[in-house]
Amino acid sequence: MSASSPTRYAYLGPEGTFAEQALITIPAAEQGVRIPARSVPEALDAVRDGSVDAALVPLENSIGGQVGVTLDELASGHELVIVREVVIPVQFVLAAGPGLTLGEIDSVVAHPQASAQCRRWLRAHLPGAAVIDVLSNGAAAAAVAAGESPAAICAPIGAARHGLPVLAKEIADHPDAVTRFALVTRPGPPPEPTGDDLTTLAVYISHDEVGALLAVLTELAVRGVNLTRIESRPTGERLGRYAFFLDCTGHVAEARVGEALMGLRRICADVRFLGSYPRAAQPGESPVPQPARTTDADFAAATAWLEKLRTGR
Amino acid sequence: MSASSPTRYAYLGPEGTFAEQALITIPAAEQGVRIPARSVPEALDAVRDGSVDAALVPLENSIGGQVGVTLDELASGHELVIVREVVIPVQFVLAAGPGLTLGEIDSVVAHPQASAQCRRWLRAHLPGAAVIDVLSNGAAAAAVAAGESPAAICAPIGAARHGLPVLAKEIADHPDAVTRFALVTRPGPPPEPTGDDLTTLAVYISHDEVGALLAVLTELAVRGVNLTRIESRPTGERLGRYAFFLDCTGHVAEARVGEALMGLRRICADVRFLGSYPRAAQPGESPVPQPARTTDADFAAATAWLEKLRTGR
Amino acid sequence: MSASSPTRYAYLGPEGTFAEQALITIPAAEQGVRIPARSVPEALDAVRDGSVDAALVPLENSIGGQVGVTLDELASGHELVIVREVVIPVQFVLAAGPGLTLGEIDSVVAHPQASAQCRRWLRAHLPGAAVIDVLSNGAAAAAVAAGESPAAICAPIGAARHGLPVLAKEIADHPDAVTRFALVTRPGPPPEPTGDDLTTLAVYISHDEVGALLAVLTELAVRGVNLTRIESRPTGERLGRYAFFLDCTGHVAEARVGEALMGLRRICADVRFLGSYPRAAQPGESPVPQPARTTDADFAAATAWLEKLRTGR
Amino acid sequence: MSASSPTRYAYLGPEGTFAEQALITIPAAEQGVRIPARSVPEALDAVRDGSVDAALVPLENSIGGQVGVTLDELASGHELVIVREVVIPVQFVLAAGPGLTLGEIDSVVAHPQASAQCRRWLRAHLPGAAVIDVLSNGAAAAAVAAGESPAAICAPIGAARHGLPVLAKEIADHPDAVTRFALVTRPGPPPEPTGDDLTTLAVYISHDEVGALLAVLTELAVRGVNLTRIESRPTGERLGRYAFFLDCTGHVAEARVGEALMGLRRICADVRFLGSYPRAAQPGESPVPQPARTTDADFAAATAWLEKLRTGR
Repeated sequence: MSASSPTRYAYLGPEGTFAEQALITIPAAEQGVRIPARSVPEALDAVRDGSVDAALVPLENSIGGQVGVTLDELASGHELVIVREVVIPVQFVLAAGPGLTLGEIDSVVAHPQASAQCRRWLRAHLPGAAVIDVLSNGAAAAAVAAGESPAAICAPIGAARHGLPVLAKEIADHPDAVTRFALVTRPGPPPEPTGDDLTTLAVYISHDEVGALLAVLTELAVRGVNLTRIESRPTGERLGRYAFFLDCTGHVAEARVGEALMGLRRICADVRFLGSYPRAAQPGESPVPQPARTTDADFAAATAWLEKLRTGR
Repeated sequence: MSASSPTRYAYLGPEGTFAEQALITIPAAEQGVRIPARSVPEALDAVRDGSVDAALVPLENSIGGQVGVTLDELASGHELVIVREVVIPVQFVLAAGPGLTLGEIDSVVAHPQASAQCRRWLRAHLPGAAVIDVLSNGAAAAAVAAGESPAAICAPIGAARHGLPVLAKEIADHPDAVTRFALVTRPGPPPEPTGDDLTTLAVYISHDEVGALLAVLTELAVRGVNLTRIESRPTGERLGRYAFFLDCTGHVAEARVGEALMGLRRICADVRFLGSYPRAAQPGESPVPQPARTTDADFAAATAWLEKLRTGR
Repeated sequence: MSASSPTRYAYLGPEGTFAEQALITIPAAEQGVRIPARSVPEALDAVRDGSVDAALVPLENSIGGQVGVTLDELASGHELVIVREVVIPVQFVLAAGPGLTLGEIDSVVAHPQASAQCRRWLRAHLPGAAVIDVLSNGAAAAAVAAGESPAAICAPIGAARHGLPVLAKEIADHPDAVTRFALVTRPGPPPEPTGDDLTTLAVYISHDEVGALLAVLTELAVRGVNLTRIESRPTGERLGRYAFFLDCTGHVAEARVGEALMGLRRICADVRFLGSYPRAAQPGESPVPQPARTTDADFAAATAWLEKLRTGR
Repeated sequence: MSASSPTRYAYLGPEGTFAEQALITIPAAEQGVRIPARSVPEALDAVRDGSVDAALVPLENSIGGQVGVTLDELASGHELVIVREVVIPVQFVLAAGPGLTLGEIDSVVAHPQASAQCRRWLRAHLPGAAVIDVLSNGAAAAAVAAGESPAAICAPIGAARHGLPVLAKEIADHPDAVTRFALVTRPGPPPEPTGDDLTTLAVYISHDEVGALLAVLTELAVRGVNLTRIESRPTGERLGRYAFFLDCTGHVAEARVGEALMGLRRICADVRFLGSYPRAAQPGESPVPQPARTTDADFAAATAWLEKLRTGR
């Protein structure tokens, strides 16, 4: 995302899902070209081969957790970096065929995660309806549009795209559910630090060493770098071999983060840098306070002092 | 699993998937009643309401990672405990309609995780075939049996159950892929320690405290308890709030594990004990060595010494 | 200090030093028999062989630091325990021969530590006087009494005992200097916990292990036991082999201290318990606050919870 | 010790003590001017005011422990640095007046630490002799030379200087006892790294913070810097306020030591650098092995990697 902003964006399709809804919150993407990809790997490969400038893919959901395929794809193949995160509410609606009322709905199509997140609403309002699994939220809306099902649980944008009437809004059990997406580009200079940034890493530890994960967390803690998220993913070698995905407070340009990264680089079997980018604060959240004595000024003072010791003044 | 062994077993269905294949490796289950459940929640609820004695559900896959729904279900609702783990190879086959040869296959049904794990084989042997997503490995085999598709990627047991010819075996990209299942019962006395056990926990930390996860790992390390796995799951409250699932070496009956558990209980917002059970060593694996000075005898000696100090001998 | 209070007390002599002054602050000693010892080893051996019930010996001085011989003697030979600490101000006086004025003093006898602590006063008020080293504060006063020197730096009690005029009071550079003494007995039940106690330990670590001292401090920190003092003493084997003397907050009867002691006992080459006793708070000091979640009630709740897990309720 | 080697040396006198014996093991000092100082402060002040180029003062003894006055003087006043350590055996002799035999000795003068270190020999060979305390080993030899005492416990150099016959050699209870001296200069470029160096620091921690010493040790451990010695000294403010003197493996010019120093500088109330200098290995000792992944090359590789991340390659 070096000189000019990207103009061609891939996103996890199909059209009418939350990924598209998230993408258009980015002004440049709202005005750029948006291309749905059939899968996360396809979206990221499009970045790697240069056919798009950036891709928006889901990282995690506050109910469903990690999106494993995204983590795996970021950790393998040519390096990519996250330059922005987008967090959007996951508000499901019940979209129905034209003219139908709630009392007439005897079956609902839904992605299994969507129906799981609306379980309480379904039990209360459609206790007798059969729930039919489909493979995406977009596919659910499309099935109703095609007349294959009387109703669907889907994203608001899915109903809108197909012109489907919405019988009920905000039907998820957790009204505050959100999904976090990452805007991913080829490596380049990271976005400028804002004072409230995150840095994402994939670290691989040597599993023959007791306490290796403890050592990783200590490298961060000693430099006043907080961990806001840790996910493990299998490396595929065998059970018990994991890569750890860490979200840390701070920006690679900051001294404390830089020193922590170098520490991890030294002690870990491998470290992949996955980007430093502004934190998308959720409503009501304030910036993560930086621990005392870890500012760039603190590091600069210590460096100047060391230089004097080494040269004898 | 108190007095007598369970005789009624639920498992994650449908029939013909890896869960059934895993269940029949347990002799008592091989002779008992086996009931497929439509989902992990359904299987576990059957244990909770007493309609079965135990349920076998997937915990993690060496390629796909955590099975989030299982972790979430174990962490909520009435308490359940793991009494046994079963690890089985995930060897996919290509099952086809009667009389078909590989050259005649122009489309394949598969669960998306299954087709992802066989990507290289598909590219090499069926480069022109369309891949149609279905919702489970069992459903893939059933679709071929029903004549809805010429071929399916499925488990060996799925092909066998429907009497489908197998055109290719061991087609997964990672030939050593395994899935780990847990046999779950209502709480009761844990299985006897064997000297090579695991203890599974769900811990909730207070996220207002910096370094809370570091403190959790330190409680374990100080007592010589190794961590073999850590998974995070969202608590559903908001992004950044996680439960951590820990697999630790050792058995709750051991002094070192007991003291570590009590330490976690004191410092964590909540701890849920999810069972101590024999480790299912994978081929070529030896027992995890116990750190020096952490045997029950070491703890007993220290306890006796303390008692003398407190009473003045 | 088992059943009845001690009635025969040894203290580090000679008469007229700070140790005697400290001893008579203990009511029972004020009424008991007080016997000066020529050295710390002699005082402690008198406890060991039963010729006295207790001995008062110096532990540290806020200016001069550790009293090495006391630490060494407590760590070797038959075990002894501290049952009480006494902290007294170290206020030096200038005592002179009868009839002399400050202007007539051309030389001063003093223990080297005493003259070091009064350096500024001497420079200001007796810039021309020679300072002659003697071997104790008591010997300094005695030398003036014997007419061997015109003046001495000594303890108030030393001047009083010999009936020497005091030409100047509170002449130490640090007006707040204090010495801390320990009342030592043969092992027995420790004094009752008061809620503001100290526990003193001597720990020996294996010096072939990197980070052994870090491990010791971690055992304490994990149980919420604070360290208020750490001293190292050579073990005599060779340079680089030390015993560490630790003063910790809390009483051996408390659960957190007990568990920490057991942890040290397991990981250290050796641990010697040197007593739990009430902290002698200095003026203006408040009790050391106990970290959250480390009360005996917290430990009891965790123990009860563990018991339920182990028995299956 | 900048450009040319020092030519004027102070040492802790009087003549004929172990400090002089240690000083002449340094070739440049053997040929330079050697000036006895009456005290450690006097020796160090002579360096500070430029009247000598360097001073040799005792740091610790393998039996008696820390030399508190040296530590206190190094930590206060104008900064000084250690440029060399000298470790010499402390072998006491019994020196006597001319013509006397062991059977004729009825009293012995000795510094209290010297007689303490020869207790067993005295009990075995001179059980009836009175032991008279004097203020230094040099003073003991001088007293015999002056005819004031029939015999003295002193250093070999003390007997030689006064031409006293030696009735018994190596009379110390610990035949391997050693004293460690420091050669101290005004600040300047430290000696070149040798691959087996020590770095000495005085650190002051904020005592309102729980676990502050644990944090100090963690800063070192994280960078693979071992601690070979830790001493505490009172700061003089009040009981419970200490400065810690640390000897660490490695040289300030090394990356790992530099980063650890900067870490301490950031988290401690104050840090005083007291020098990097070659370790004086004791007989049979090998260099302290450097932990894996902490070489300057490891740090340089990590720095280069970080630079690439920050610039986007």
